[in-house]
Amino acid sequence: AIDAKRLLGRIRELGAVGRDNDGRLIRLAASDTDRQGRDLFVGWLNQAGLDVAIDRVGNIFGIWQSPDSARQAPLLIGSHIDTVIDAGIYDGCYGVLAGLEVIETLKALGFSPSRPVAVAAFTNEEGVRYTPDMMGSLVHAGGAGADAMLAAIGTDGSVLGQELARIGYAGDREPGFLKPHAYLELHIEQGPVLEREGVPIGAVENLQGISWQRITIDGAANHAGTTPMSMRSDAGHAAARVITFLHDRAEASNTPTVATVGTMHFEPNAINVIPSCAVFTIDLRDPDEQSLQAHEAALAAYLEELAVVENVSISAEQLARFGPVLFDIGIVERIEAAAKNRGLGVRRMTSGAGHDAQMMARIAPAAMIFVPSAGGISHSPREHTEDAELVAGANILLDVATQLAK
Amino acid sequence: AIDAKRLLGRIRELGAVGRDNDGRLIRLAASDTDRQGRDLFVGWLNQAGLDVAIDRVGNIFGIWQSPDSARQAPLLIGSHIDTVIDAGIYDGCYGVLAGLEVIETLKALGFSPSRPVAVAAFTNEEGVRYTPDMMGSLVHAGGAGADAMLAAIGTDGSVLGQELARIGYAGDREPGFLKPHAYLELHIEQGPVLEREGVPIGAVENLQGISWQRITIDGAANHAGTTPMSMRSDAGHAAARVITFLHDRAEASNTPTVATVGTMHFEPNAINVIPSCAVFTIDLRDPDEQSLQAHEAALAAYLEELAVVENVSISAEQLARFGPVLFDIGIVERIEAAAKNRGLGVRRMTSGAGHDAQMMARIAPAAMIFVPSAGGISHSPREHTEDAELVAGANILLDVATQLAK
Ligand SMILES: NC(=O)NCCC(=O)O
Ligand SMILES: NC(=O)NCCC(=O)O
Repeated sequence: AIDAKRLLGRIRELGAVGRDNDGRLIRLAASDTDRQGRDLFVGWLNQAGLDVAIDRVGNIFGIWQSPDSARQAPLLIGSHIDTVIDAGIYDGCYGVLAGLEVIETLKALGFSPSRPVAVAAFTNEEGVRYTPDMMGSLVHAGGAGADAMLAAIGTDGSVLGQELARIGYAGDREPGFLKPHAYLELHIEQGPVLEREGVPIGAVENLQGISWQRITIDGAANHAGTTPMSMRSDAGHAAARVITFLHDRAEASNTPTVATVGTMHFEPNAINVIPSCAVFTIDLRDPDEQSLQAHEAALAAYLEELAVVENVSISAEQLARFGPVLFDIGIVERIEAAAKNRGLGVRRMTSGAGHDAQMMARIAPAAMIFVPSAGGISHSPREHTEDAELVAGANILLDVATQLAK
Repeated sequence: AIDAKRLLGRIRELGAVGRDNDGRLIRLAASDTDRQGRDLFVGWLNQAGLDVAIDRVGNIFGIWQSPDSARQAPLLIGSHIDTVIDAGIYDGCYGVLAGLEVIETLKALGFSPSRPVAVAAFTNEEGVRYTPDMMGSLVHAGGAGADAMLAAIGTDGSVLGQELARIGYAGDREPGFLKPHAYLELHIEQGPVLEREGVPIGAVENLQGISWQRITIDGAANHAGTTPMSMRSDAGHAAARVITFLHDRAEASNTPTVATVGTMHFEPNAINVIPSCAVFTIDLRDPDEQSLQAHEAALAAYLEELAVVENVSISAEQLARFGPVLFDIGIVERIEAAAKNRGLGVRRMTSGAGHDAQMMARIAPAAMIFVPSAGGISHSPREHTEDAELVAGANILLDVATQLAK
């Protein structure tokens, strides 16, 4: 079994890195606080005697090369340590630190793997500062060019490549240098299913599709008191119509569609000025690709109609678009078997969140293990999973990793 | 007649003060750019040989005391020189500079008034940085205490009193020290009526009621991908419902109600996080007080209902509340007569915007003169009035002021 105290201690230690004055955890990709988190993690990799490699998009790898395992494709265990704004401490970090824990446990047990075992912390999984999300693993899997991603402009106007260089994590390895034999990721569910059903382990068999867009509505600034309702080009009101349209459509969908407008910006943002411009993001997800496409098409048609009715101009930019992904059934079955073997309840499930595993599934057999999230809450400081559940998940990861590395 | 070249030159000179790097005019109350505008104006007051007085809330007065006029209540002509964000050059400045122009013209003509004639630039008429709007004239008229207003917190977290002291405009006169015999204000219409009807002069007989509120909606942050639509407390979605509710209600109103949500802020404002909080302002206006009250009551009821349906908590704070105002019919008739006398078309009208005259009407007979706004546009860099129309309005101000000061 893994060293529960070490794992839980590290999760808390990393979770303390990147607190603002209000105590909020904010470790956005390639920021100063991300650097602090990376430094802590790399220190642990070195302590564990792993070979540390960093690629050009800042993905960090800790590689356990045993004499017997040379020249074999490695087993890779990964996730991310960047966070959203005002985050919980488990999203991402749990999987990365459990990966390291598994390697240290196997080493301590004198286990002799037939292939290298590596742990990865991928850059910018959250997609909050730079889009798309899962950026580091996407590049690793060849789904986007490193140079294009390094040119990404952040919500704060920063350039990812410059920020990585500034924080000392623009590495020298070419992304994708490590071709995994298989990929495993352990993560908190971030949703309500496991808790509601009282099941401690999720064997994630698929992941829903994700469509992210940035919408810009241009209207005309005018006086809030003198401009009749019929003469307005109110970009803010048009934005509100888009939010309610998407919400109502997602609620009425036959599939479990979710739609979120998480960011909103008005120009000039003054109390007595009709907004001349509204910029906002749309996060639209569906486990069914047909249904996701139908929502996207309906949204596009609605925006065209709305532009005419509201006398505004509307443009949409795709920030991320990933179809649903099926994980490797062989690994899913191993997860189920490992849980049963330890006397733990397990169910197959869909992931509502995006994950690095989704990208790695393009180049290797991949699957994920979920543990429950209290109240289904994530992307919030109220994110919580019980220690015993975290430890149980890490032991399932250990069992499956042991089989895949044998 | 007034000196058209001098007036138009000053409007342009003041309009060049407070440009940001993008060329946008931003002279928010008590800011550094407001100081530059005030310094320019005070320089012109000194050049004109007027007594300059500044009160504790930063209202600036230029007073023409002739030997004959001592001890009489003055005729006051005023408006403001603060602006909104990305403003036009006419809103407020036109009336202040025309007031100065009238005094200089009367002096040059050797006119001997029976009472002092003064021009005022009131602090924070726009209400964009600090609320309520028309703050300086409200205090002058005794409608709010100076100390309470000096404690106002701005959208940028600043304190008005500290900012006035910093820019050197926390004066020593007690607000209200100058009790006017009558009050005149010349302003661009900021709405579409005069242009549409081809009438160059508006004799403003009343002003609609204004209700400003700040709404705070607290929901719960959660993951955009994993949280089913039915389990959300989405503060952003609830905010959008308020916008569409108000818009539809204003459109359906029997009175010419206008409703605007000009500012919006989401927390944590991240693409894949359900907004935990939305803060926004409501600007609701109606010429009919009964109707305005009905809208306010309907809004309050809607917010209560919405909080339950959307599983959020909602609080509302009144930022400004002014009932409709009737101007002095005697002065309105003088404006009409002066226009006819110069062969100019004139119509009585309602002001859609709030104005300092609205406050001064509490303590003196007051009325306003409007000139056309091209396309009805204001609170926008596209705000425009033809030079000839500006000059015509200033000459009507001259005529009415001459009568009232005689
Ligand atoms: N797991 C996770 O929260 N990933 C961030 C990308 C997403 O929004 O799904
Ligand atoms: N005249 C003018 O724009 N005043 C600002 C206050 C308001 O919003 O009406």
